[in-house]
Amino acid sequence: MKKVIVIGSGILGASTAYHLAKAGADVLVVDRKDKGQATDAAAGIICPWLSQRRNQAWYRLAKAGARYYPELIAQLQEEGESETGYAQAGALSVHHDPIKIGLMMERATLRKTDAPEIGDITELTESQTRGHFPLLAEGLSSVHISGAARVDGRALRDALIRSAQRSGAVFIRGEASLQVQANRITGVTAGKTTFSADSIIVCAGAWANSLLQPLGIDFQVGFQKAQIVHLEVPDHQDTGVWPVVIPPNDQYLLAMGQQRVVMGSTHENGITGYDTRVTAGGMQEVLNKGIDLAPGLANSTFLETRVGFRPFTPGFLPVMGAVPGWEGLIAANGLGASGLTMGPYIGKQLAQLSLGMELELNISDYDIRNAIKGV
Amino acid sequence: MKKVIVIGSGILGASTAYHLAKAGADVLVVDRKDKGQATDAAAGIICPWLSQRRNQAWYRLAKAGARYYPELIAQLQEEGESETGYAQAGALSVHHDPIKIGLMMERATLRKTDAPEIGDITELTESQTRGHFPLLAEGLSSVHISGAARVDGRALRDALIRSAQRSGAVFIRGEASLQVQANRITGVTAGKTTFSADSIIVCAGAWANSLLQPLGIDFQVGFQKAQIVHLEVPDHQDTGVWPVVIPPNDQYLLAMGQQRVVMGSTHENGITGYDTRVTAGGMQEVLNKGIDLAPGLANSTFLETRVGFRPFTPGFLPVMGAVPGWEGLIAANGLGASGLTMGPYIGKQLAQLSLGMELELNISDYDIRNAIKGV
Amino acid sequence: MKKVIVIGSGILGASTAYHLAKAGADVLVVDRKDKGQATDAAAGIICPWLSQRRNQAWYRLAKAGARYYPELIAQLQEEGESETGYAQAGALSVHHDPIKIGLMMERATLRKTDAPEIGDITELTESQTRGHFPLLAEGLSSVHISGAARVDGRALRDALIRSAQRSGAVFIRGEASLQVQANRITGVTAGKTTFSADSIIVCAGAWANSLLQPLGIDFQVGFQKAQIVHLEVPDHQDTGVWPVVIPPNDQYLLAMGQQRVVMGSTHENGITGYDTRVTAGGMQEVLNKGIDLAPGLANSTFLETRVGFRPFTPGFLPVMGAVPGWEGLIAANGLGASGLTMGPYIGKQLAQLSLGMELELNISDYDIRNAIKGV
Amino acid sequence: MKKVIVIGSGILGASTAYHLAKAGADVLVVDRKDKGQATDAAAGIICPWLSQRRNQAWYRLAKAGARYYPELIAQLQEEGESETGYAQAGALSVHHDPIKIGLMMERATLRKTDAPEIGDITELTESQTRGHFPLLAEGLSSVHISGAARVDGRALRDALIRSAQRSGAVFIRGEASLQVQANRITGVTAGKTTFSADSIIVCAGAWANSLLQPLGIDFQVGFQKAQIVHLEVPDHQDTGVWPVVIPPNDQYLLAMGQQRVVMGSTHENGITGYDTRVTAGGMQEVLNKGIDLAPGLANSTFLETRVGFRPFTPGFLPVMGAVPGWEGLIAANGLGASGLTMGPYIGKQLAQLSLGMELELNISDYDIRNAIKGV
Repeated sequence: MKKVIVIGSGILGASTAYHLAKAGADVLVVDRKDKGQATDAAAGIICPWLSQRRNQAWYRLAKAGARYYPELIAQLQEEGESETGYAQAGALSVHHDPIKIGLMMERATLRKTDAPEIGDITELTESQTRGHFPLLAEGLSSVHISGAARVDGRALRDALIRSAQRSGAVFIRGEASLQVQANRITGVTAGKTTFSADSIIVCAGAWANSLLQPLGIDFQVGFQKAQIVHLEVPDHQDTGVWPVVIPPNDQYLLAMGQQRVVMGSTHENGITGYDTRVTAGGMQEVLNKGIDLAPGLANSTFLETRVGFRPFTPGFLPVMGAVPGWEGLIAANGLGASGLTMGPYIGKQLAQLSLGMELELNISDYDIRNAIKGV
Repeated sequence: MKKVIVIGSGILGASTAYHLAKAGADVLVVDRKDKGQATDAAAGIICPWLSQRRNQAWYRLAKAGARYYPELIAQLQEEGESETGYAQAGALSVHHDPIKIGLMMERATLRKTDAPEIGDITELTESQTRGHFPLLAEGLSSVHISGAARVDGRALRDALIRSAQRSGAVFIRGEASLQVQANRITGVTAGKTTFSADSIIVCAGAWANSLLQPLGIDFQVGFQKAQIVHLEVPDHQDTGVWPVVIPPNDQYLLAMGQQRVVMGSTHENGITGYDTRVTAGGMQEVLNKGIDLAPGLANSTFLETRVGFRPFTPGFLPVMGAVPGWEGLIAANGLGASGLTMGPYIGKQLAQLSLGMELELNISDYDIRNAIKGV
Repeated sequence: MKKVIVIGSGILGASTAYHLAKAGADVLVVDRKDKGQATDAAAGIICPWLSQRRNQAWYRLAKAGARYYPELIAQLQEEGESETGYAQAGALSVHHDPIKIGLMMERATLRKTDAPEIGDITELTESQTRGHFPLLAEGLSSVHISGAARVDGRALRDALIRSAQRSGAVFIRGEASLQVQANRITGVTAGKTTFSADSIIVCAGAWANSLLQPLGIDFQVGFQKAQIVHLEVPDHQDTGVWPVVIPPNDQYLLAMGQQRVVMGSTHENGITGYDTRVTAGGMQEVLNKGIDLAPGLANSTFLETRVGFRPFTPGFLPVMGAVPGWEGLIAANGLGASGLTMGPYIGKQLAQLSLGMELELNISDYDIRNAIKGV
Repeated sequence: MKKVIVIGSGILGASTAYHLAKAGADVLVVDRKDKGQATDAAAGIICPWLSQRRNQAWYRLAKAGARYYPELIAQLQEEGESETGYAQAGALSVHHDPIKIGLMMERATLRKTDAPEIGDITELTESQTRGHFPLLAEGLSSVHISGAARVDGRALRDALIRSAQRSGAVFIRGEASLQVQANRITGVTAGKTTFSADSIIVCAGAWANSLLQPLGIDFQVGFQKAQIVHLEVPDHQDTGVWPVVIPPNDQYLLAMGQQRVVMGSTHENGITGYDTRVTAGGMQEVLNKGIDLAPGLANSTFLETRVGFRPFTPGFLPVMGAVPGWEGLIAANGLGASGLTMGPYIGKQLAQLSLGMELELNISDYDIRNAIKGV
């Protein structure tokens, strides 16, 4: 059976390992478990249909990622994984301006034609909106999207890992480096041990650059830092059924079960190194925008602030595929702010690619050369 | 020669009258010169190409409106109209997040394919951005669109009116009511005088509802109130060459000549009646957002606050055409926030329609029945 | 009878002229009626007892000024002056922190011992506070001072001027310059006319420096610019009975009759020249602080912004008395933010001083040499 | 030798135990070490001289507390206690308005007459002010008070406890209840053990009410919740020499050694129970005010938020003395926001009182009956 090593165990690496293991491959996953893993910090919104981005390749991928979720979650649940972190709780796209709500309804309805999974699209008055998410500010009406979902990155990743392990995948913690023979990647060294493999898949997100550098590959992935605040609502409210709240700016509110509400996030560019610090200014920004959106959260308890790094390519499109010039080396990266939406689906493609199976996706639209300088 | 009465002399009515008079028609324009005329308050940005709106009918119209400007302005200038209020000063679409700037570049470039009039699309660093508009906040980079323009609603309307008058059009001030015989509109009464006409064109914006009500027409045009602040930059800077500034939210900054900078605007819905008041809260909102965007404006002199009403239809699309069930009655309305972009071009269509000429535009996409209840 | 010329007709000059004329003097008042007269812009709060300032000389003067008001207003009303601009409407000293309210009660009660005119001191709950001033923010409790009053600077100044005129005083508009013979001021030139007098009293506030400069006097009066916003409450509420609102910061709200509410003010130092401009930043500051204090004012109508200059001396104490080294020259200045509180009372002292009468006040505490460099 | 039990080991209890032990008493301290101890959360500013509070009894006590510090710290240092948490780093009282700076200079100078320990009083320009505390906002000038100090509540308390232990004091953790015989307090029960004593001193701050309730004493001490944010400045700056910053509102900034800067605090009244939660709204308020004051702190690292409860009496004055009606029972409470300023000094008085020594302070001004209902 084919031996495959996956480097990185964020949502992308975990999904790749899961699909490989299910397909019978001999899978080893190496991760250095640094602070700042995007998946670890993230609470994801699965609702690509309202995006204003016009790039068709991006939208096709995001839409496919969202469509794949129910099938994946069903598979995990069949195996007995009850804690997938996924809940189709719907989303509220809110705005103070009813005219903008009308334009959103128009956009969502246009998009439904080729994405029925969007579910019911309903225009909600201010009081209906607050009926769905009781802590919101006054004056907000909304479009409700019933097919939208939320996912807890940690929980889904862990469920995928547990399932992969049950199918024989092995996860080790360590700093990986690539083993090279001529133009072929033969394996991975972690600590003092070397593991050989037929195929190596690099799902290392923000850390891929330094991993590939020894090969002379100038990988052009940049990072955006996100600080995300976790709160606990004091009164016993059933936060688990609250929909995701998407305001006009970059912020969001995502309720989870057990009284937890997540406020995200900063979008910090131009950071130097992996600055995993929670900063006074970052918290100020998130708290101001979040409490402005939902004043009722002012009285919630502060639990923690998480920090993640979103990887992105020069064209802001994910890239994936075989690394040109090297045998046995596959990579994917640049999932940006949509990592949880796209990650499970791209992981499936990577597994199929490394096993020589036919792909569902035309990955030439996401050519990995777009993220490599001088190719 | 055909006799046509135009009701309303905002940008739409003025353009209609201009094109009718140029075509040789016998034109009478009636306007009640109320406070709150959208054109009177507005400083328009001619830059539809960056809009995130997906409705194709809307975009076609906005694009055609922008494309028509250079031709119209050239005609006016040939007649000796130097004060058209139009200047192709370019636009800066600014953002704090360089990733968003990258996505804007992508969108603008996609749009240029069928809209070469967008001109040069240039990504500007923070310091280049402030080089174009010196008072901006720190931390903003931008996409510069060279083909974008600004237009002063009052000045363009007045230039169109002067030109129409030179071609024989007559403008009177008064409260118009429609004269009816069976199912035909025969003319208009203003004050104690009745004027007969072959065709009546209602360009009455926010006031059309009450004009059409006596005919039993339930016109579904709503209004959004806009408060717009005019400032004077103290030092002698050549504000006339500054580009329009378009931030991520609804606000904008528009410099004009003679040290004047316009900050707009509120988007007030659900107002009752024509509340033309300048309010403390409205000014607060505009000043806070504008000074946040351009802190250098804090030391500018407050000149005045203008109030206008933007008309919109239930589908947020302009409507135009012959009013069904009535002979001799044409109307257009619902130009929303794009009145100055689309108004001159739609006026041309209305003139052609009333004169029985062939239209450039397929107006069936903008069926006036969409704004009439029960048709 | 003694001939006296008063230069300046703000509240101080008007009161001086009034008291002189009542005492039978032959009074001429010269004023250049510039923009930016402090009195013209000001809406005054007569409530010195809560001040935290510890300077005893200052407090004695402010307290005496407040105590004099009822007597002065009664005299004016006896003459038939109904529009004095004065109303003993009380004051609310508000705070979000009940502990601070307790400390204010303590301070006010201590002060009442030698100032019974403070009236009733009452601690009000949040709902009682809003009962007195309905538009206030939530969460504010207050101390109510029944003896506090408001005064409209323009109205009181005009009432004093009308009364002085009835007693024979003459007011002329013009740019005054002093006439000198040896070390004696003999009169004043205004335009092409020279007026002689036994005594000249300079009440020229912010403009005194340039008036005294030709005498070689380096008068050390500085100015603070104040921008003050006037609003109209839309609904028919009896704003005339609303108390003055004094928050913990420098801002205030002062309701007048006829639906008018005044929001003050900026405190702009280091201005260059008499910059009488209403600025975007000044309005932003006043609107933000005022609407934060009384959110209900957001929907009020913006009427106008007034600009005034508050004169102050190096020691922040008013100065008054005969100018040393010159015969026939008296001046007073530096009333700062308390001009309307102290002005009428100091005017009375100046009149008595110039007429050789005994003074109520020991003016040596306010030695004019404190404001003259090199004396 | 006399046996004394002290209940509570905040700054007041620790100081009482220290002075008792030094005087040779047999001391036992019982504390339940709850979350929310005021001393544990607090970073104190020793600078009572600028307070605007007029109550003379309060000021005498605060002034005496500040004056006692150098002597106490010297004693601790003689014993070898180097970590007292105390540093005479000076204070900057900052304001945007230079006129207010002038008035502060006046107030400080008046106060120096009978408080030479205030040290040098210096008016600083904006650039001098930022020279002392580099992260401050632009536009702030200040009064610098050289005699002001900061103190870390935890460190000083621990130093006092260590010293008391060296002199034989015993500290135990437990929930204390009072042992009563007729009208005499005979000792304290903690857990299952009872300790007898000649005198019991209740220094239990916010928890005293429930301790005294079984005696039928209705103790009227209320609490104000304070949330305090601790930050770490990223660059290697010598924060240990930075002065305390006191702005016009209730906020403050206090730098400590090792890159730590403390931002305080909320002033939350009307809380129910001991709500020790760190809340989203509390952090938002502290961060907004603190970063507004010192924008340079936006990039500092968030370390933790501490919560404390400041006890206060109905008259906002500390109370102390023998509890009337009970023998062997002494209490002190209500130190409010000045606990660290006054606590060490009051602890000395309590020790003297319980040992029958003559007191430095006339404690009748702080009669404990003022905090007991119905006495």
